[in-house]
This record gives sequence, structure tokens and C-alpha cells, in this order.
Amino acid sequence: MDETLSLVLFSGTDDKLHAAGTLAAGACAMGQRVNVLLQYWALDAFRTATINADHGLAFDSIRPGTRQPPAGSAAIPWLETFRMAKELGDVTITACSGSLEVLGIAAGEMDPIVDGAGGIASFLLAAEGGQIVFI
Amino acid sequence: MDETLSLVLFSGTDDKLHAAGTLAAGACAMGQRVNVLLQYWALDAFRTATINADHGLAFDSIRPGTRQPPAGSAAIPWLETFRMAKELGDVTITACSGSLEVLGIAAGEMDPIVDGAGGIASFLLAAEGGQIVFI
Amino acid sequence: MDETLSLVLFSGTDDKLHAAGTLAAGACAMGQRVNVLLQYWALDAFRTATINADHGLAFDSIRPGTRQPPAGSAAIPWLETFRMAKELGDVTITACSGSLEVLGIAAGEMDPIVDGAGGIASFLLAAEGGQIVFI
Repeated sequence: MDETLSLVLFSGTDDKLHAAGTLAAGACAMGQRVNVLLQYWALDAFRTATINADHGLAFDSIRPGTRQPPAGSAAIPWLETFRMAKELGDVTITACSGSLEVLGIAAGEMDPIVDGAGGIASFLLAAEGGQIVFI
Repeated sequence: MDETLSLVLFSGTDDKLHAAGTLAAGACAMGQRVNVLLQYWALDAFRTATINADHGLAFDSIRPGTRQPPAGSAAIPWLETFRMAKELGDVTITACSGSLEVLGIAAGEMDPIVDGAGGIASFLLAAEGGQIVFI
Repeated sequence: MDETLSLVLFSGTDDKLHAAGTLAAGACAMGQRVNVLLQYWALDAFRTATINADHGLAFDSIRPGTRQPPAGSAAIPWLETFRMAKELGDVTITACSGSLEVLGIAAGEMDPIVDGAGGIASFLLAAEGGQIVFI
């Protein structure tokens, strides 16, 4: 399989970051190229100042009766999963320039796992013919 | 159309489960195979103990001025929609083994509408060349 | 590129509407047709009565330590982005008839930027062979 998986990563909670990392690592393991575009709260989560913080869980987790992760959200290994994906295969993580501007974040504030900044046009160009997933 | 629709179902509120069920049923009606991978709060929602509970609405519904469903979230027929989709066509619902582990849920706790447990790799393999949607 | 980008737009907060508008405008700029199906809280946001309101931010933004948009959510130009996309290219925005019914919204309540109402089947038919994104 030599398709590209293009991942618009918008969400910033540990559970959704983990779902994204798992998808990226799985695609890598199957030989796919993976392009991740960080927007809004995912962009926020990948800042050097916050990348190791506890980012909590999605709103869905708050409903009464849900099974909570016994080890807590801080133990969810989403960043390790992205690091493993980058070691395994061809993963590019890009900070969305539009979101940087809206949130007033400088590109230099991003953690070194982020490869650079770029816009939606070049992201979509690389996505051509492949799958686009929004998380 | 003989494509496969691959649905990563992460969310556990009644409105998003309904959106997912509608997409699955629509794809079935068009002759597509549908593979659903249950992660996190969707996995939680498909447990026998909780599948018939009121799972509430997404955070977006809380904003002042939104039009609330007159019949309430408990009346949203998401489970019936999935059941109909399974009768109509070729729908496989899989509990994500990684999410089972993170939430400390045993495979035996899942409702019988769930066909089994499995990982991201076999899900992505079956998704090859088709569409992947994350809800 | 003459693929179709099919966008199931479910979310109703200004940040996610912006992400959706940006994706639609980007796809238009690359010559893709774009079909948007409005469900639930996006449908609610596109009502004439609410389209210019402040729709707030996603739940992810509430976590302590997140970088808030300095100009606030009301300044996020999501509607302008959709208008620009419609001027640039071939964008159709459809109110999902199932969601209209669940929320008790009449098709006549929708803002004129919405082209009409329709179901999931015709949406999926137009999506054939292209990309489907759920936001």
C-alpha cells in the first residue's frame, strides 16, 4: 500500500491525541506515508510548554456511568505513539499557519517533533488520491 | 459501488452515535461494506450495561440559543439505525483492543451487536483503497 | 484534481466551523467540487437566527493552560471563509433532512447560504470515489 494518510488533527485531549497517534502508527506500519496538520487545540497541545501536560479527556467522558481509564488521562501514551510512528515510517507533522495566527502562537513555540509550519493548500496537494481523516 | 466505508467511532453521545449509524446505514443501502472500529467513549457506549442508557448530547449543544431535540437525546434512535444497517448489509462492528485495555473493559462486557475485538492494523488493512471516517 | 470532497459537518462551534470552511476553501482552490451536509449543531449554527451569533469554542479549549484566540471566538471568520469558498468554486451546502427532523427545524429557517435540504443517500452517491471528512 503506498497511499498517503492525511490527518487533520484539531483536538487536544489525551484520548483523541491517542486515537490519532494510533492511526498514524498503524498506517506507518502498513507502509503508508502520513501527513499530520495540527490545528487549534492539537496545535496548542504540541507546544513545548504544554506537550507533557495532562490534557484531559473529551467531553464524552463526563457522562455519568462511563468507564474511566484506571490509570488516568495523563498515563495515555499518545506522544510516545507519535514518536514511535516517526521512527517506524514517513510521518510529517506540520503546524497549520492559519491556526498559529488565530491562536497567536509563534512557530518557534512548537515542540521539536513538529517538522514545520504550512498551509492547507500544500496539505491537500499531498493528500491527493489518498484518505483524509479529521480528528 | 463496492468500496468499503471504514468508520473509527470514538464518540459516545447519542447525537454522534446517530450520525455514525446514519452514515453506516446509508453506505449499506448503496451496497458498500462497512467496518466500524469502536474506540474510547463509543466503546463505552456499546457495553451491555450502558447501551440502552441516555448518552446525552455533544458539548456543542450546550451553547445558549441552540435548538434542542424536542424529544430529548434518549429518543434518538442510533442503536436501531445500527441494527437496521446490520440487517440491510455487510456491517462489522469491532471493539478496538487498545481502547479495551486503556479503559479496563473486558471483551465480554460488550453488547452482542459487537462482532468481536481487534486492532488498528487489521482495520486499516480492510480499509485499503476506501474511505476512512472518524466520528 | 477533479475529485469531490464530501464534508459531513456536525459541529457547531466557531473553531470547528472554521476548520471546515478552511478545508472547503482549500479544496475549491485546487479545483475540487465540495459537498457539505449539515447535521445537528452545524445545522443549528447555519439557521438565519443564529448564523451571526458567537458560537463559542470546542470543549478542548476549556482545559487550563490553553492559548485562547486573542480576538475571541466571535472574530473567527468561518462564515466569510465559506462565502469565499462558494465564490471560488463549486460548493453545495445541504441541510440534512434527518437532522432537521430530530431538531424540529424547518428548511425555511436556514440561512440563504444553504442550497437546500437532502438525505444521506444522495450525499453518499455524490461522494463516490472521493474523500469523506466528518467534522
